[in-house]
Amino acid sequence: VQQIAIALFPRLTALDAIGPYEVLQRLPGYEVVFVGSEPGEVRTENGFLGLIVDARFEDVPDPAVVVVPGGIGSRAMMRDARMLEWLRTAHRGSSYTTSVCTGALVLGAAGLLEGLTATTHWANYDELAATGATPISDRVVEHLDHRIITAAGVSSGIDMALRLTELLVDRTAAEAMQLMIEYDPEPPYDAGSPERVSAAVRQRVTEYAAVRD
Amino acid sequence: VQQIAIALFPRLTALDAIGPYEVLQRLPGYEVVFVGSEPGEVRTENGFLGLIVDARFEDVPDPAVVVVPGGIGSRAMMRDARMLEWLRTAHRGSSYTTSVCTGALVLGAAGLLEGLTATTHWANYDELAATGATPISDRVVEHLDHRIITAAGVSSGIDMALRLTELLVDRTAAEAMQLMIEYDPEPPYDAGSPERVSAAVRQRVTEYAAVRD
Repeated sequence: VQQIAIALFPRLTALDAIGPYEVLQRLPGYEVVFVGSEPGEVRTENGFLGLIVDARFEDVPDPAVVVVPGGIGSRAMMRDARMLEWLRTAHRGSSYTTSVCTGALVLGAAGLLEGLTATTHWANYDELAATGATPISDRVVEHLDHRIITAAGVSSGIDMALRLTELLVDRTAAEAMQLMIEYDPEPPYDAGSPERVSAAVRQRVTEYAAVRD
Repeated sequence: VQQIAIALFPRLTALDAIGPYEVLQRLPGYEVVFVGSEPGEVRTENGFLGLIVDARFEDVPDPAVVVVPGGIGSRAMMRDARMLEWLRTAHRGSSYTTSVCTGALVLGAAGLLEGLTATTHWANYDELAATGATPISDRVVEHLDHRIITAAGVSSGIDMALRLTELLVDRTAAEAMQLMIEYDPEPPYDAGSPERVSAAVRQRVTEYAAVRD
């Protein structure tokens, strides 16, 4: 059984990690392991949810897949020598090293995005560029020759993980997992991209982000 | 501050709970509380992920919003007298009592869907009908006069929670949260509904479900 390592850390964005988990957790021949600094609980950005780290980074040195979620806590992880060293080591042997949202900043801080196009949450392109990547606004950006896939903000990890399922198993598996999670999205509004919302909506995002970040 | 209570229980489907959590967690005037039988860890269906229950059902008797996720463990919760009693009590005062996926079966077992149309995961319509509801295949089914909203399988909780955000705050808030989670879905396949997939995909779903359920 090969390992899919999903990193957890304090003040992460839960959906960044759980979207890919839900898609990847049933693939035959793989198990999902949640890794972090120490086994035990980490809390999400606002503290409302605890998630359990089951293994230390160093306990999972050779995962087939790495998934790095984002969140306000990703800024601390960009300076976390243990996580960065683990990412560099794991990436040497991984089939795919991936990120969701500001998880891309951590891949960038580990030096894995140097000279590559990549994506992240729409509000963080400048920070991504500072790590040596060239930000683009695609929902999923893959560099199969470098075994690197980055996804845009939060919910995009679901789309990324479906594509990853096709790469790891086959297209039938990817479609089966899309059907299993009934991913037939019907967003009630057309507000998923900053270009398509009003100034009032952008202002509200700024207010809500300020309260809890 | 009003409470949004999200139920957790052993062998739940994580994304059913975390999709709505991610959308609802920033709304001004609300806090999210994860409730369950006892404080402490519960594990998802395959055991790969631990999530933390912070409060007993009885500790949150008067939430403004109730969210019941699904998963294989929802069958046990349909017979859990404490959860059912809590649901009935909480629903008396809630603004909205909601479910995602087979969480609808638990609402049904509590008697809350009697005579109403409702939805659940596409594989569970017969079980939902057995609780007295009339299953329909819409992604989100709302009965505002009964303060009941049910969502279809797994990922549909994101769509449901965006609509709920409009009801709780306003449309600007809902669009802001859609933009915050960059919910601009691009499923790489058209496989989100059982009518649109091949027999091979349906067969694969059966295989994958059998391994881990």
